[in-house]
Amino acid sequence: MEPLHAFTPVQEIKLRTDRIRKLMEKASVDAILISTNANIYYTTGRVFDGYVYIPAEGGPLYFVRKPVGLEGEGVVKIHKPEQIMPMLAELGIAAPKKLGLELALSEYLTVKRLEAAFPDSTVADASAIMREARSVKTDYEVEQIRRSGMKHCTVYKKIPKLYREGMSDVELQIEIERTSRLEGCLGQFRVAGSSMEIHMGSVLAGPNADSPSPYDFSMGGAGVDPSLPVGADGTIIQPGMTVMVDTNGDFTGYMSDLTRVYTPADISPLAQKAHQCSIDICHAIEKAARPGVKASDLYELAQDMAKSRSLEHYFMGHRQKAGFIGHGVGIDINEMPVLSPRSRDILQLNNVIAVEPKFVIPEVGAVGIENTYVVRADGLECLTDMTEQIIRLQ
Amino acid sequence: MEPLHAFTPVQEIKLRTDRIRKLMEKASVDAILISTNANIYYTTGRVFDGYVYIPAEGGPLYFVRKPVGLEGEGVVKIHKPEQIMPMLAELGIAAPKKLGLELALSEYLTVKRLEAAFPDSTVADASAIMREARSVKTDYEVEQIRRSGMKHCTVYKKIPKLYREGMSDVELQIEIERTSRLEGCLGQFRVAGSSMEIHMGSVLAGPNADSPSPYDFSMGGAGVDPSLPVGADGTIIQPGMTVMVDTNGDFTGYMSDLTRVYTPADISPLAQKAHQCSIDICHAIEKAARPGVKASDLYELAQDMAKSRSLEHYFMGHRQKAGFIGHGVGIDINEMPVLSPRSRDILQLNNVIAVEPKFVIPEVGAVGIENTYVVRADGLECLTDMTEQIIRLQ
Repeated sequence: MEPLHAFTPVQEIKLRTDRIRKLMEKASVDAILISTNANIYYTTGRVFDGYVYIPAEGGPLYFVRKPVGLEGEGVVKIHKPEQIMPMLAELGIAAPKKLGLELALSEYLTVKRLEAAFPDSTVADASAIMREARSVKTDYEVEQIRRSGMKHCTVYKKIPKLYREGMSDVELQIEIERTSRLEGCLGQFRVAGSSMEIHMGSVLAGPNADSPSPYDFSMGGAGVDPSLPVGADGTIIQPGMTVMVDTNGDFTGYMSDLTRVYTPADISPLAQKAHQCSIDICHAIEKAARPGVKASDLYELAQDMAKSRSLEHYFMGHRQKAGFIGHGVGIDINEMPVLSPRSRDILQLNNVIAVEPKFVIPEVGAVGIENTYVVRADGLECLTDMTEQIIRLQ
Repeated sequence: MEPLHAFTPVQEIKLRTDRIRKLMEKASVDAILISTNANIYYTTGRVFDGYVYIPAEGGPLYFVRKPVGLEGEGVVKIHKPEQIMPMLAELGIAAPKKLGLELALSEYLTVKRLEAAFPDSTVADASAIMREARSVKTDYEVEQIRRSGMKHCTVYKKIPKLYREGMSDVELQIEIERTSRLEGCLGQFRVAGSSMEIHMGSVLAGPNADSPSPYDFSMGGAGVDPSLPVGADGTIIQPGMTVMVDTNGDFTGYMSDLTRVYTPADISPLAQKAHQCSIDICHAIEKAARPGVKASDLYELAQDMAKSRSLEHYFMGHRQKAGFIGHGVGIDINEMPVLSPRSRDILQLNNVIAVEPKFVIPEVGAVGIENTYVVRADGLECLTDMTEQIIRLQ
């Protein structure tokens, strides 16, 4: 037997639940039923197979299918979702008039089945509520990301020692993966939605950075197989090239996002200039970003700086451009707010965002940095503190 | 510019499309619109961001959002799905009366958006059609899995040399991951649906094999973090324990599934007996399984053999039991047919299945094997050919 709340303090769970409830109230939702792993993790501090039921009033209920042995206040064992409504009735809880389900995350047939299991409820979207709630981190969550960020930096500082002359990008990535895992990286790279796929992140050497990819990551890369066309493609790392490392920072269930550029030798002045522009953009955003600022304004700021230095041709990609320069990060790599031209997000206190103004310089490769920040009242606080300069591979 | 069909022979794509069309005809579906990565990969040999439109008659159309530069017969560039129907009209193609969408795989809001983009069509389920089509492999697909299986075995044969006394399960797993990746493993572990998560597979040492997990894998394990409660948990590998290795076999976009057991020293007679029972079950199934046989009968056969040797208490888990002893495998780890008591699947020629009758012996750990097989007219052909005995860690 194991208590459900074995991992995350109950007080922390309550903070999160209260935040969700405020947003439920705003949307006139009487209860939400959560069944995706990331949101179950957010609302309980663990992943189980089942459902978290959060009513507008009264304690949350945890309908657990697996694992066996979970117990605690509010835990109800079930085999199938059709048992939930009868069990609520038994507990004297009325059917919610408006039930929130994760419409943007759950499969169509899953939602239809849950809809049928609550015949007296109309269905609303809970995924937007959860996305909004999760975009503002608690202090506890910020500390998880800070812990990940520190380990992430520890790994990146070891990268020069992992390099051997004649190595391919794939070989270097494999050593980075191993070093990350030995440092405690969980390996898992959580992405909301089903369309983005990647293994442990991306290492882009030289011209491969200019290979377009189908995925919504900031950079592309051809990959080594058409079943996973992203990232390293077997390019041998050579003088004149950059190697951009943007790999998995999930050390705690909460991810940091960090990019640094490495080179075996000097690179072109244009590439150096673009890298410095990225650093300068980050520093400008560190000052400009605070609660109440439009996310789209930060994109404009970055784009304007790139333009003013005649670098817009390379900004956020060359053959194919990414449409954003930053994004929220936490349990998933793609949270709110999104720093894009058409984003309607407004920065809030304790958003955690990754800022990644990058450039692709033809023949040389990708340059630029990415840091993870928490939005404080007076600007951004960096959670990935290490040198931002291009790092020499030894 | 790059041709869409750069990777998989056009004749092979045609074979697959013909198979899909036969199933569409059976379901009276006039066209299907595919948008999930695994099914786009199946129908084109690559992953792109967009949609594959397969009409009952006429050539498939490929509506591509990303990457830039894809071209070839049937390729149409789009920005959003609302453009598809007008573009079909322009090409003189009538709206399908019944349009198949991936209802079991696509998010609810995605399906609703596509439904709205085809106002003159009624919606049917294409995911069942695709699942059925993909369950019977072409010769080309079997060869991809065979190639993965050979590399998978190469990695597993190296495991004894990766072991050092005093190692934890996590440390051994990290060296297996590195060896796999150097052998060409893509790292990506494709699972259909959103509920199962794992990083590069599972290494279970000793009693951790008896820790229940929320996921639908055959074995559990506590994991090292509550955000990913499965697999290795940091157990130090010690004499008397088994180490069950069941890690990623995706070397080609098509996965093999392979489990072997390793030990640093002799294990209990009960554990040895259960391991031999697993081998014997596999050999019995190799003979019994052929086209026309019920998948549930193979489960019964396995269970009966476990019972007849008084091992049912440990069969497919101890504290928590898995409900199946095998499953289809290919692009995803969880394909059809499913070898479970209530499965309605009937084995077909060229199904590829992983068979994994396993046991959890308290205190010792997990024993048993898993092989990947193709269903031939006269029984199973093994695609993961290496010793089935317990392997000594050196």
